[in-house]
Amino acid sequence: MILSPSHIIRLRLDILCLALTLCILNFSCKSELKTDAKAEVKTETKNQKPVLSLSNSEANEIKELLNSNEILNNSFEEQKTKADKAIVNGIEVPVPKDPGGGYSHEKHKRNYGEMYAAGIAYMITRDSKYSEFVTNMLLAYADMYPQLPLHPKRKENHPAGKLFWQGLNESVWLVNTIQAYNLVSDAISPEDKKTIENNVFRKVAEFISVDSKKTFNKIHNHGTWAVAGVGMTGYVLKDQDMVDRALYGSNKDKKTGFLKQIDMLFSPEGYYSEGPYYQRYAMMPFMLFGQAIQRNQPDLKIFEYRDQLLGKAVTTVLQLTDENGAFFPFNDALKEKNYLTSELIFASNIAYAYYNDSSLLPITHEHNKVSISGAGLSVAKALQNFNAREYEKKSLLITDGKDGNDGGLALLRMPNLQRNEKLTTVFKFASQGMGHGHFDRLSLFLYDGKQEIIQDYGAARFLNVESKQGGRYLPENKTWAKQTIAHNTVTVDETSQFGANVKASSEVSPKLLFSNVRNKDLQIVSAKEENAYDDIAMQRTIALVEGKNSEQPPFVIDVYRISSANKHQYDLNFMYQGHLMETNFEYLKANTLSPLGTKNGYQHLWKLAEGKSDHNLATFTWLNKNRFYSISSLVSEDSKMVFSILGANDPEFNLRNDASYMLRENDKKDHVFVNIIEPHGNFDPKLESVQNPHSRVKHIQLLFSDENYTIVKAIFNNNENYTLAIVNNNHDPHKKHTVTVEDQEFQWTGNYNLKTN
Amino acid sequence: MILSPSHIIRLRLDILCLALTLCILNFSCKSELKTDAKAEVKTETKNQKPVLSLSNSEANEIKELLNSNEILNNSFEEQKTKADKAIVNGIEVPVPKDPGGGYSHEKHKRNYGEMYAAGIAYMITRDSKYSEFVTNMLLAYADMYPQLPLHPKRKENHPAGKLFWQGLNESVWLVNTIQAYNLVSDAISPEDKKTIENNVFRKVAEFISVDSKKTFNKIHNHGTWAVAGVGMTGYVLKDQDMVDRALYGSNKDKKTGFLKQIDMLFSPEGYYSEGPYYQRYAMMPFMLFGQAIQRNQPDLKIFEYRDQLLGKAVTTVLQLTDENGAFFPFNDALKEKNYLTSELIFASNIAYAYYNDSSLLPITHEHNKVSISGAGLSVAKALQNFNAREYEKKSLLITDGKDGNDGGLALLRMPNLQRNEKLTTVFKFASQGMGHGHFDRLSLFLYDGKQEIIQDYGAARFLNVESKQGGRYLPENKTWAKQTIAHNTVTVDETSQFGANVKASSEVSPKLLFSNVRNKDLQIVSAKEENAYDDIAMQRTIALVEGKNSEQPPFVIDVYRISSANKHQYDLNFMYQGHLMETNFEYLKANTLSPLGTKNGYQHLWKLAEGKSDHNLATFTWLNKNRFYSISSLVSEDSKMVFSILGANDPEFNLRNDASYMLRENDKKDHVFVNIIEPHGNFDPKLESVQNPHSRVKHIQLLFSDENYTIVKAIFNNNENYTLAIVNNNHDPHKKHTVTVEDQEFQWTGNYNLKTN
Repeated sequence: MILSPSHIIRLRLDILCLALTLCILNFSCKSELKTDAKAEVKTETKNQKPVLSLSNSEANEIKELLNSNEILNNSFEEQKTKADKAIVNGIEVPVPKDPGGGYSHEKHKRNYGEMYAAGIAYMITRDSKYSEFVTNMLLAYADMYPQLPLHPKRKENHPAGKLFWQGLNESVWLVNTIQAYNLVSDAISPEDKKTIENNVFRKVAEFISVDSKKTFNKIHNHGTWAVAGVGMTGYVLKDQDMVDRALYGSNKDKKTGFLKQIDMLFSPEGYYSEGPYYQRYAMMPFMLFGQAIQRNQPDLKIFEYRDQLLGKAVTTVLQLTDENGAFFPFNDALKEKNYLTSELIFASNIAYAYYNDSSLLPITHEHNKVSISGAGLSVAKALQNFNAREYEKKSLLITDGKDGNDGGLALLRMPNLQRNEKLTTVFKFASQGMGHGHFDRLSLFLYDGKQEIIQDYGAARFLNVESKQGGRYLPENKTWAKQTIAHNTVTVDETSQFGANVKASSEVSPKLLFSNVRNKDLQIVSAKEENAYDDIAMQRTIALVEGKNSEQPPFVIDVYRISSANKHQYDLNFMYQGHLMETNFEYLKANTLSPLGTKNGYQHLWKLAEGKSDHNLATFTWLNKNRFYSISSLVSEDSKMVFSILGANDPEFNLRNDASYMLRENDKKDHVFVNIIEPHGNFDPKLESVQNPHSRVKHIQLLFSDENYTIVKAIFNNNENYTLAIVNNNHDPHKKHTVTVEDQEFQWTGNYNLKTN
Repeated sequence: MILSPSHIIRLRLDILCLALTLCILNFSCKSELKTDAKAEVKTETKNQKPVLSLSNSEANEIKELLNSNEILNNSFEEQKTKADKAIVNGIEVPVPKDPGGGYSHEKHKRNYGEMYAAGIAYMITRDSKYSEFVTNMLLAYADMYPQLPLHPKRKENHPAGKLFWQGLNESVWLVNTIQAYNLVSDAISPEDKKTIENNVFRKVAEFISVDSKKTFNKIHNHGTWAVAGVGMTGYVLKDQDMVDRALYGSNKDKKTGFLKQIDMLFSPEGYYSEGPYYQRYAMMPFMLFGQAIQRNQPDLKIFEYRDQLLGKAVTTVLQLTDENGAFFPFNDALKEKNYLTSELIFASNIAYAYYNDSSLLPITHEHNKVSISGAGLSVAKALQNFNAREYEKKSLLITDGKDGNDGGLALLRMPNLQRNEKLTTVFKFASQGMGHGHFDRLSLFLYDGKQEIIQDYGAARFLNVESKQGGRYLPENKTWAKQTIAHNTVTVDETSQFGANVKASSEVSPKLLFSNVRNKDLQIVSAKEENAYDDIAMQRTIALVEGKNSEQPPFVIDVYRISSANKHQYDLNFMYQGHLMETNFEYLKANTLSPLGTKNGYQHLWKLAEGKSDHNLATFTWLNKNRFYSISSLVSEDSKMVFSILGANDPEFNLRNDASYMLRENDKKDHVFVNIIEPHGNFDPKLESVQNPHSRVKHIQLLFSDENYTIVKAIFNNNENYTLAIVNNNHDPHKKHTVTVEDQEFQWTGNYNLKTN
């Protein structure tokens, strides 16, 4: 937020009011002050040193508030304790030698964290031991850096660093270290400043922006870290050319650089194409550099840029989390990561400070920590009178692609009234998401409250665990986690979408056909993918339905329509979490286990059992944390139901032993998978009672399907029934449709219709 | 507790004091009142109706306190709401027809719960709609019961009921229903009373105590439910013969009956031989009947009986829980069960009321509910000024057997200072525990804080889940869960202990050799089992050690010594929970999976991999909830390390897919397994940092082993080392021992010695 004249007047009035009340009696107008002070992030006057995140006056205010503001005090004490420990341990700047996880790698990472902490400690305490620590460490870097070759453990086909095996780490080092330097620079002698600026910052910035130009100009999070580091360094060194290259690209032609990254990497809603796990990581340089730009070139109105894109991006990444706060684990993602991560403390603090968006306060409250910065100060003050409430997660349609035309994501959330929890369905029809993307188009996943019910595997990786290939992505990430069969979508002929070719997949995206996520009783999204396989068009429609009987939880109608001129095998897989309770069909379990297939991820699944049904409804029920779930499927006598468990061809125990249930159709041209996915009961171990352990679905019918319409009907045990009509072509919310099936006429207006009896 | 004259005087003084203060000013002497009022459970005077759990005066006091005592109010409201709903739904007493989980079964269960709730509601509100509900339902039972044959779905070789397929359920019905009747009987006409008493209670009591005499006289929890129901009925019907048969057995010769059950079913510390899962269940009739005896025959001093055995039994079952409050899942046990279960609300309330044992209050506080009874009233009053604190779990040696000579259990608990949590090792060397016992002698399990690290499988059962064989024990409970290989102990020649014969196993027990569980730095227990296999003697010594470096978590030294005149295969299995991270040995994973064996549980394990080591230390490290654990084992070139996963020969998906790691020794006569089991690090997903991912153990040595002594040494990476000397024979805590190994002389006093360098 930019301070307008009216804001300044209100601010002054508030300050006057505060002064008066403090003088007269023990009664303050704090709450009014708070409201507007939220946005109080001052632009420093020109004759002071440039400021990246924390000005002298902000530091003074923080110092004054430490006694009365617990969160601020704790956050500061954490930094100060870290700095104190670092000073006791002494300075060590080792010659770069080890890869990720190794000693020199971890030491250089620790060094920037400690310099940053000491910088904070100096700003608040003004104790010179902190500034000396930063200065001396930077002088040690100044001694070493100019002579450094490329890192000895650099990887082929991967941009190298000098301090680190990867160039990315070098940029992160710079983002942190330039802030540390900025915080203490007042206390450094002109001579040392010169040494440090010339031998460290200019050298590192040159390495990143010139020697590693390709990465620097990349429209990618590695590029963002690079331009953020270099741009912030430019402000501190008062080198506008450096800043301009960061903002507009090496050639300053705006074809690359920070603004172009904002243009290209986000959808209009602020979705970052690599997905939430990487968005979390990317938001840190986006917001830190954004903050530095706002403070040093306020005329650029960076936080207003592209219709307040940076603010939207913070909100969107927070919405892309489950009820534990963990990021939806699609693409390469570690499930352990949630919004309590330090990157999102910085990002949400800055977003709050500049957008004055109080919807973020529940998150910052959960953080129980702020960044020691002007932004963190705003948050800490706002939290002082904040009544804890939950962060509001909404049903959202989030488009992908810079223009919002490259498919997207639907987050369908519906309260489960009985349990005071939400049922959440994620439907992914987004673009590839670059190198960390998975071949998972039209995939679905389901959460009940805090539990994963139908999961996305996430990434095959044990981050920073040395024994698991140095903590890098494991080979099984490529051979399993990225493959289509690892996802809750259809794999054709045991081959992944686009033949698992990133380049081919990146060129085209699925398309949203229609959606309505605002309805209380019915949230529905339909998307199509026509390029993943040569001769196949696929359309999936996901509807989250609150049934007639509101004592029962909502359920999902899943209609997956495939058309092709040729015969294929279609495998619709569900990676369910839990324990099989019952099926309404016979199956045979194997006495020796063999892999389900030989390639494209199939080689990693042990085939446990195969079943067939002699009627046209296949029901599979499982238990997850004392709750029952069922998938009821329209099948024929030729359909196969296949159970498998992950872990085959996994020589080093890299994979989890997760379960899956697959509906397999052979020799089909056109096919429509119709499934009802329902939570439906629970086991109470205290009372030893079981409620509704069986699926409520009695029949599923495919009433009609052609290129224009699909009509399905689900009939429940109590004869409640739901008829869903879907328009497959020429979508128009106002168009009237009529379909006659046998004697029955179906009429409706718009892209879909759900009729309930 | 019995009210002594001094108690009564103090009580009167308290009441006077209260009255005075309430009159004079708004200041009360509540806290002093509370202290003694805890034990205020009045013996009703002779001319009133007999009381089982709640007298009129107690009911009046509860009514008065409802406004001011939230826990009492909520507990009462729960009962009242249940009764109100039941009245709205009307009375239905179906003809018995269905087995467990079926409609008539569940309905009769619900009926007694609703009658009990209505009885409570009547006592507090005196609203006749509640007494009428109970009366009318009992009249309906009176109409039906006398004509009932044995239940049509009774099981062969299982005592049958009439209302229920199992006699046990009939007893439970009676325990609940006689209380309901007792609560409302004042309001029933003499004529109806006669009908109900003659056609229901005398008939049911006769069926249970005469027709089903065998169960009634059983020293077993089914017997306890039977005598409790009949004995309580005897008090209410003023039929002392009925009471005496319940107390002293059918023949009133004290060879069976309640007192004999107390004598025989518990060890001196109050351990119930079936294990904690069934002890939880058994404590309800023990305590309810105990309470009824105390109120109606106080001279029997039942709560003092056998050195306050009933009180000890409540404490012991509460101590036999993990940090989640779940019962240690040995023998047939469901892991979902914890001390919040209703049986333990009754039992802990009664124990608190009669023993005035404030150590129970944290549990009753966690219950957040009391029974609506005199005992519950005492607890509710005590909780009003209770400051929440954790229930104190201790390191305990709990003997088994009525004289404490049949082995036992060791609970070793040591704080993990870094994490402010406890490491808990359970060592089981108890008797068979009757029909629900497992063949698990000398088994070990490990918990870190709230996490299971090395688990006991528990029972193969989905309680009350109809689709899983009606919720009964599954076939795999016998073929897997009870077998020795399912436990963390040694299986010889792929055969379970005692050939899985309960009768043979019940005749002999393991023996405790020595123990010390009170030491801060070292808790140690040694036990032997010499009967499980014909020609084999086994001794296991478990030591929980706080290392020299208190920044590292405690670790376990596990020395398992086997001697035999003949050659055997010894399999020491560990059912670890988590994901394999690394081994220091090579292994080969199979490309098709086959079962590890053909019988005795082996048929259920898929063999995943087998490894061998070319040096004498095998290290296996796994990750559980972001923490690292290792088992380091002394091995030879002939040792095999086998990885498997559960689920083979499991045609209906009844088993969980749990992992195991086995040390296998072939063709050995004598052998000593020496293992160090250590937690040693963690992964912090927020910081993305990994600490201590590798085992700290560098060498393990077996310095000496014969029939008299075993001496082992573990050397850590930092050269810290631990030498543990164990006496195998002639145990005496004061005896001096000298062993010379090569040039080194080991001298110590007592049954063990740990030397640390």
